[in-house]
Amino acid sequence: MSDFAKTKKLFHMPDGVIYLDGNSLGPLPLAARARVVDMMAAEWGNQLIKGWNSAGWMLQPRRIGDRIARLIGAAEGTVVMGDTLSIKVHQALASALELNPERRVVLSDNGNFPSDLYIAQGLLKSLDKGYTLKVVEPEAVEAAIDESVAVMMLTEVDYRTGRLHDMKALTEKAHAAGALTVWDLAHSAGAIPVDLAGAKADFAVGCTYKYLNGGPGAPAFIYVAPEHQDAARPALSGWLGHEAPFAFDLDYRPGAGIDRMRVGTPPIIALAALDAALDAWNGIDMADIRRASIGLTDLFIAEIEKRCPELSLNSPRDGARRGSQVSFRHREGYAIMQALIARGLIGDFRAPDSIRFGFTPLYIGEAEVRAAVGIIEDVVNNRLWDAPDYRKKALVT
Amino acid sequence: MSDFAKTKKLFHMPDGVIYLDGNSLGPLPLAARARVVDMMAAEWGNQLIKGWNSAGWMLQPRRIGDRIARLIGAAEGTVVMGDTLSIKVHQALASALELNPERRVVLSDNGNFPSDLYIAQGLLKSLDKGYTLKVVEPEAVEAAIDESVAVMMLTEVDYRTGRLHDMKALTEKAHAAGALTVWDLAHSAGAIPVDLAGAKADFAVGCTYKYLNGGPGAPAFIYVAPEHQDAARPALSGWLGHEAPFAFDLDYRPGAGIDRMRVGTPPIIALAALDAALDAWNGIDMADIRRASIGLTDLFIAEIEKRCPELSLNSPRDGARRGSQVSFRHREGYAIMQALIARGLIGDFRAPDSIRFGFTPLYIGEAEVRAAVGIIEDVVNNRLWDAPDYRKKALVT
Repeated sequence: MSDFAKTKKLFHMPDGVIYLDGNSLGPLPLAARARVVDMMAAEWGNQLIKGWNSAGWMLQPRRIGDRIARLIGAAEGTVVMGDTLSIKVHQALASALELNPERRVVLSDNGNFPSDLYIAQGLLKSLDKGYTLKVVEPEAVEAAIDESVAVMMLTEVDYRTGRLHDMKALTEKAHAAGALTVWDLAHSAGAIPVDLAGAKADFAVGCTYKYLNGGPGAPAFIYVAPEHQDAARPALSGWLGHEAPFAFDLDYRPGAGIDRMRVGTPPIIALAALDAALDAWNGIDMADIRRASIGLTDLFIAEIEKRCPELSLNSPRDGARRGSQVSFRHREGYAIMQALIARGLIGDFRAPDSIRFGFTPLYIGEAEVRAAVGIIEDVVNNRLWDAPDYRKKALVT
Repeated sequence: MSDFAKTKKLFHMPDGVIYLDGNSLGPLPLAARARVVDMMAAEWGNQLIKGWNSAGWMLQPRRIGDRIARLIGAAEGTVVMGDTLSIKVHQALASALELNPERRVVLSDNGNFPSDLYIAQGLLKSLDKGYTLKVVEPEAVEAAIDESVAVMMLTEVDYRTGRLHDMKALTEKAHAAGALTVWDLAHSAGAIPVDLAGAKADFAVGCTYKYLNGGPGAPAFIYVAPEHQDAARPALSGWLGHEAPFAFDLDYRPGAGIDRMRVGTPPIIALAALDAALDAWNGIDMADIRRASIGLTDLFIAEIEKRCPELSLNSPRDGARRGSQVSFRHREGYAIMQALIARGLIGDFRAPDSIRFGFTPLYIGEAEVRAAVGIIEDVVNNRLWDAPDYRKKALVT
């Protein structure tokens, strides 16, 4: 049995479902359910308030951060959990801007997840100091790095196309121009090998409900490079980022290292689920995940292009230039995705016209890919999507 | 069987424990454990990404917000869940300051929870516009309200002493002086009747892991008065506060009403626990809770003062002027609390010298209060706290 056949057994997958949407919400790890039940009964139920000490709750954000650090090429003590990805973007960008106080441009691209851009817009408006958010095409980022840029804020893997930025090269160019970097790893962590330390990234953020399978709305993470940790002022200066939270001083003094990026009380039930979910990564080498992922996505692209001429590839064809997801375009993409879901193949739709599929080797293999291709071929070539029900827009797409 | 004897059965309480710390972390509601198990298996496990629509996940922050609104005198559509209390303080204060742009003073008191002050300090420093955070004694707040004050930011119930501010009178005075108000209900929601609408509060925030029993690190809430909802600019402008989150536009446009205070992806597992925990409040009138709470705290104060002359009351003696908690001071408060906990009576310690007890009529009655008094009398009068083990400081106190 291959390692991935072993890890597949760690997840619950409903009968009749081919799940190519783990890039949006990972499936339920069986261990997460068991751990949460235990946490609620044995820890919250029986230890009550004492759980903050006796069950180690207060240390969870750092301990779990260290587990994620291993998957993203970060040293111990550089990652901490909490809040949501949007909040972490705010923290990282606010701190980075203060570390580069003479400049007034934040550089990003239109393949960045909109929430990151929204958070930047809100922050820059609050700061009211003449900042500009410069949003260019992903391919134009490199040329747009100049000495006006305070912070380059990018998502490594484009949420629509899977297009992969060269983190190391862009960071090097940004640094050469005197800019700092904030990298969003939402579609990277658990999807591809990431080497934050090797790339000399300054700040990074990410979520844990996609490839890391932490559950809907699982806590986010923030990375601060060791050289910035004692200089970065936390804009969201909550008590758990204080040097001595339980002294209840009236004045804020940032804690040492990454701890200052903690804000409020950590979400212990959610962290228990995430902690157990991360067990699936024990002993896994991200290089093996990457090899399997490229094999699956190459196969998927080749088969779809051979069998479904109406679909046009909306992802890089070169496996080295994409993350672990593949998109195809079709003017009826929304209806097509609804028809696929009705037949047990779950992916998702991204406006205006992309159907998107995520490939997660922990629990998806060649058999699932081939079965998925068969369903897509049937739905697209036989126009099975052409039914009123499949055009009804849901709240969440 | 009284209503409270009925609600007591809704909670798990370990044998041999008298729990007077529900003001810090409420005990496990049995329904919360069952609901979370069901949410993980039937919703996350079987519905996967579809749960955002089919299980109603995306609507939870508003739906649960409406349930809490009833307990704090707020109209439907004025409360939304998410993040932590510290984040909500940031949101409320940032929006309030922008609504009063000509002024430069934030008024608070030294009985406010330190995290609220820390968040204010961080925000004012980020804004860098000459703001002052003026922190006075709780008794001096009223006299300090003048026409320099942009926002008065207070916690209604003092976390140390239980001293209760007069929300309605202070808000009225603040409004007369042209100031806006941010009320922190951390020790109010579920503890005492709150009438946000009647008091004409502008913004309010609170947590749900204390009297509302949502579990460690349960999501926070924010209230925005109807008249401010369309004018309040969200400083933390995340995608779920956008007018059309799934259009993935590049520019932020705030959503209608309270929805704009949503930020990132909601924490669905934690919200499931909270939702079930709130079932204990079905049919409960906060006036009945208040009557029971004053009865229990009056009894506790009278008995302790009669039997333990070494302890000095650190809470208002008049029940109408305190929340649902009582503190006593003793120079050896820390060791005393450890000795009480070792004997099954759980309260907590707050620096420098307070032992603090919370009274939660949903599951605490006269029998528990009388038993608690007996343990305290034994520990204090017989110096049972005088052992090295009881002086060891834990990480979390």
